[in-house]
Amino acid sequence: MRLRNKPWAKDFIQKHPEILIPNPEEFKGKWNEVFGNDHPLHIEVGSGKGQFIVGMALANPEINYIGIELYDKVIVKALQKALEAGSPPNLRLLKVNAEELENFFQKNEVDRIYLNFSDPWPKKRHAKRRLTHERFLRIYESILVDGGEIHFKTDNRGLFEYSLVSMSQYGMVLNEVSLDLHANEPEDNIRTEYEEKFSALGQPIYRLEAQFAKRNGG
Amino acid sequence: MRLRNKPWAKDFIQKHPEILIPNPEEFKGKWNEVFGNDHPLHIEVGSGKGQFIVGMALANPEINYIGIELYDKVIVKALQKALEAGSPPNLRLLKVNAEELENFFQKNEVDRIYLNFSDPWPKKRHAKRRLTHERFLRIYESILVDGGEIHFKTDNRGLFEYSLVSMSQYGMVLNEVSLDLHANEPEDNIRTEYEEKFSALGQPIYRLEAQFAKRNGG
Ligand SMILES: C[S@@+](CC[C@H](N)C(=O)[O-])C[C@H]1O[C@@H](n2cnc3c(N)ncnc32)[C@H](O)[C@@H]1O
Ligand SMILES: C[S@@+](CC[C@H](N)C(=O)[O-])C[C@H]1O[C@@H](n2cnc3c(N)ncnc32)[C@H](O)[C@@H]1O
Repeated sequence: MRLRNKPWAKDFIQKHPEILIPNPEEFKGKWNEVFGNDHPLHIEVGSGKGQFIVGMALANPEINYIGIELYDKVIVKALQKALEAGSPPNLRLLKVNAEELENFFQKNEVDRIYLNFSDPWPKKRHAKRRLTHERFLRIYESILVDGGEIHFKTDNRGLFEYSLVSMSQYGMVLNEVSLDLHANEPEDNIRTEYEEKFSALGQPIYRLEAQFAKRNGG
Repeated sequence: MRLRNKPWAKDFIQKHPEILIPNPEEFKGKWNEVFGNDHPLHIEVGSGKGQFIVGMALANPEINYIGIELYDKVIVKALQKALEAGSPPNLRLLKVNAEELENFFQKNEVDRIYLNFSDPWPKKRHAKRRLTHERFLRIYESILVDGGEIHFKTDNRGLFEYSLVSMSQYGMVLNEVSLDLHANEPEDNIRTEYEEKFSALGQPIYRLEAQFAKRNGG
């Protein structure tokens, strides 16, 4: 009974399976049943402490949101935010690795993917770990609807430059680019934790919307 | 005999038909004859006072360069620079409008196009005048070799954002993007007049290399 050593985060997470889904592979292809409606499904990959995904869920009740984050210690903060926000019915969280998204989402099940301030992995030899590496783009394409979009924000110049090229060479088309989002911040922009931090330091925030090619040349 | 009223620039230009070609439509499809070799042909559209195109011609003797500029008053400065540089044999200038490039270059005749600090035309209703508008991309594509590239630099954020989207939506692929060229200036970067000016003001210089799709899916 080494209860004292059991991490607090894990305990807390286990108490809220209604928000932080413990067995997400069981709902592959059935997320509309989980939410009890056929609203569009938007996911955020690397959702961190959850300010964005909780804010989006509150702002857009007609869209279903799932935040995906790798670490207990981080996602527990998102869980707390979700509870404080009154457990929005259109929000769920998954503690899983982006590399395994295809275990949790069926082909065409996701309508949009958000990437916010993804880890930059500046060294060339770590390029494969960047969430906009071709390796991940293939996964996103497979779970997204035909012609689905990625919306990506970052303060990191190197990662943004890399991502523009990576997405373009993958065959994606850019529909929107901002190289200083806060110079003219859209009214509906929901800031992430990192966005607030880096914007306060005076760094420009970069943003893009990119779309996968339609299948069958459609 | 209203000679005094005849602009000095026009006079000077007429004295140097060996550099500033007065009848360029006659050389459509024959620029290799003008240069007397089969070296690659790179053109700059909107070459202004010529610092870039003269610098490039001196730095890369195995490439042929043509600077294209609309205004007498401006191109005369480029002509002066070319003369001061000893009339590099691989450099010519044309005082023509980019809208009419197809009158001066045959399909597949140009190997690369440079656009540097093109006029931004910030108002939406003037978008058609931007040198990266689809209207111009069609012209560039028609005179460029299969899979030819555009290299574009600017300090203007709005124009760069627009151009990324315009080129991508046209079907071009990005091979290179820098959002702060001078943070890590390549050794072989030749600065333009505008580049020096805006860099001195502390503005980031944006740069991209984009490639037209290969024909026949090749
Ligand atoms: C720099 S933080 C940004 C957090 C948040 N999106 C923001 O903008 O404030 C990146 C987050 O992505 C998570 N992450 C990195 N790689 C991941 C992966 N392969 N799968 C899921 N989450 C990942 C990290 O654990 C971290 O919490
Ligand atoms: C802002 S200046 C930049 C000059 C130079 N490239 C530099 O970076 O210093 C743009 C130049 O493009 C020229 N230009 C604009 N529209 C053009 C067109 N349709 N055809 C040829 N030149 C054009 C203008 O006359 C002007 O000299």
